[in-house]
Amino acid sequence: MSTLHQTKLVHNFNSGPSVLPKEVFEQASNAILDFNNTGLSILEIGHRTSLFEAVLNEAISTLKELMKLDDEHEVLFLHGGASTQFFQVPMNLLDDNETAAYLDCGTWGTKAIKEAKLFGNVDMVASSKDRNYTYIPKGYAIPSTSKYFHYTTNNTIEGTQMHAIPETNVPLIADMSSDILSTTLDFNRFSLIYAGAQKNIGAAGVNIVVVKKDILGKVSRKLPSMMDYRSHIENGSMLNTPPVFAVYVCMLTLRWLKQLGGITEIEKLNDIKSKLLYDTLDSLPIFRPKVDKEDRSKMNVVFVIDNPELEKLFLAECKENGMVGIKGHRTVGGFRASLYNALPLESVQALTELMKDFAHKH
Amino acid sequence: MSTLHQTKLVHNFNSGPSVLPKEVFEQASNAILDFNNTGLSILEIGHRTSLFEAVLNEAISTLKELMKLDDEHEVLFLHGGASTQFFQVPMNLLDDNETAAYLDCGTWGTKAIKEAKLFGNVDMVASSKDRNYTYIPKGYAIPSTSKYFHYTTNNTIEGTQMHAIPETNVPLIADMSSDILSTTLDFNRFSLIYAGAQKNIGAAGVNIVVVKKDILGKVSRKLPSMMDYRSHIENGSMLNTPPVFAVYVCMLTLRWLKQLGGITEIEKLNDIKSKLLYDTLDSLPIFRPKVDKEDRSKMNVVFVIDNPELEKLFLAECKENGMVGIKGHRTVGGFRASLYNALPLESVQALTELMKDFAHKH
Repeated sequence: MSTLHQTKLVHNFNSGPSVLPKEVFEQASNAILDFNNTGLSILEIGHRTSLFEAVLNEAISTLKELMKLDDEHEVLFLHGGASTQFFQVPMNLLDDNETAAYLDCGTWGTKAIKEAKLFGNVDMVASSKDRNYTYIPKGYAIPSTSKYFHYTTNNTIEGTQMHAIPETNVPLIADMSSDILSTTLDFNRFSLIYAGAQKNIGAAGVNIVVVKKDILGKVSRKLPSMMDYRSHIENGSMLNTPPVFAVYVCMLTLRWLKQLGGITEIEKLNDIKSKLLYDTLDSLPIFRPKVDKEDRSKMNVVFVIDNPELEKLFLAECKENGMVGIKGHRTVGGFRASLYNALPLESVQALTELMKDFAHKH
Repeated sequence: MSTLHQTKLVHNFNSGPSVLPKEVFEQASNAILDFNNTGLSILEIGHRTSLFEAVLNEAISTLKELMKLDDEHEVLFLHGGASTQFFQVPMNLLDDNETAAYLDCGTWGTKAIKEAKLFGNVDMVASSKDRNYTYIPKGYAIPSTSKYFHYTTNNTIEGTQMHAIPETNVPLIADMSSDILSTTLDFNRFSLIYAGAQKNIGAAGVNIVVVKKDILGKVSRKLPSMMDYRSHIENGSMLNTPPVFAVYVCMLTLRWLKQLGGITEIEKLNDIKSKLLYDTLDSLPIFRPKVDKEDRSKMNVVFVIDNPELEKLFLAECKENGMVGIKGHRTVGGFRASLYNALPLESVQALTELMKDFAHKH
């Protein structure tokens, strides 16, 4: 079956769900037929068995190790995606009469703000909406009375990325869905980090939450058990039946990253991949990157061709050459190449060669 | 790899996650390496592609067909398990000053009641707690002023099952997690049905909600987008990234059930399986079923041996004979054999033979 997979060479630039390591696909495929020689599929094992406990424990401990988290930070694997966190965060942390600071630098930040307003006051400290979110706002102040400061580290749709952690004395909360584990960061500076798994951590269907315990238990509203981070901490992410297979795929992907040398090693590869693509874009006038140079994302490279006919043609050539997921988000247009951790350098090389060839012809 | 799976014969009596059809495991395993000859894994395809749309549409239409749902009922595939529905139901349907009627006939019903109390008043119309939930309460009245009536159709832990739909003029809401699609029911009589997939529908990590549109939009509280059934209906279960693989496994399992002849056919097999096991239990005095005869579950057969030493011995013999998941829930003790749709008759035959042999020896 592996052979089948090899016969058709595909370069997967999907923005998420997205490419995962080949080894992960192979191991996951085998585990569906026979998990660890138990004669059982990973899909039919009980979640309260030592079989699954080992999977969950390895996923948690590997994530802690990769992120170098201290003991004040808990790692949770929860149902729902980042969109669930948009409301679960303020529901747990923001009382009706309190104010949280939010940065509006893209589609996901805007959605997070909308949900937060259901639970308390939102102070939008800055926005890059004026230029269609093609840059990261700078020079704004975060009031020290804010309950917390929330931002999106990487804007999957618009192709911008925050390259430094904002300085503030209030608890930091970040949606890291599309760049978690891709670049070294002092993760301990955050009070809460969340990320849908389907970009750098695994497949769709599970959400990673890293939370510092000291921020919990301070709101006056009563929380449904499934929404209360404390219930999940107490129950070790097993308050109810977890998404077993999705957690398993995370564990395999995290194990792969650890064996590769962790975040510092993958960051080197990510730098090479994104530099190659941006350098190519900058050298070929036919292509135009859409965002400010200093705010470019290393995960999602967004660009256009200022000629609709040529755009169509380039898209067709990408397709002919086995490149998928290269079309830009419908709200932005043009192209987007997502260069997540598991995307091989060869895929970026294939794309840049095609771009040079295309620029040469037109 | 198929061969590997065959070499170790396992009878999987897990209560959930639980056994799925062998064909589903094989197809899912292949799709992780190469989904529909795309050269892509099912884990790396975009959810807003025609590839995944076809999967989701087939899952929805097959479920509608199997349940014979009318056009007033919408089918949703949502994140989270039934535990999320415990609070999402009252959050969407019950205002602070309103009262909903709940039946307390087991662990899950009790949990649903706890969550509902966060949103409005709960009128617990009856409970079988007095005898440790070993029967289904009868003869209770459901006030016609109740906003809705909620009950659990099958009690996975205690091993009881409601064999008829309660008569009432208020909207009916049921948690069918552990017996959905196992027995013919007029599903159109319900205003809302929910079920975690990991028993009769698929793998853990997705939740099925069937909802009649006319009950929505009547509460005064503002709902987070991800909690509002209407947002999910409007977006066809694609409000955010769905749990792609979990939905795919549902689709495969639903397709299998349809090819088998649907609910009426699987019900015949379920009747044969449960009758064989209960008849065997009734014929062997060493084993004692725990629940009232008329309320016995056809999905989860709960029984004890009134001798702790023999219980241990029987459990060991089950293990030796490749039977997994036979140990009773920690709160109930003894044994539990779950006989979900995908459990082959041969597994029940193997268990009853072992029981007869064990009774003969002791």
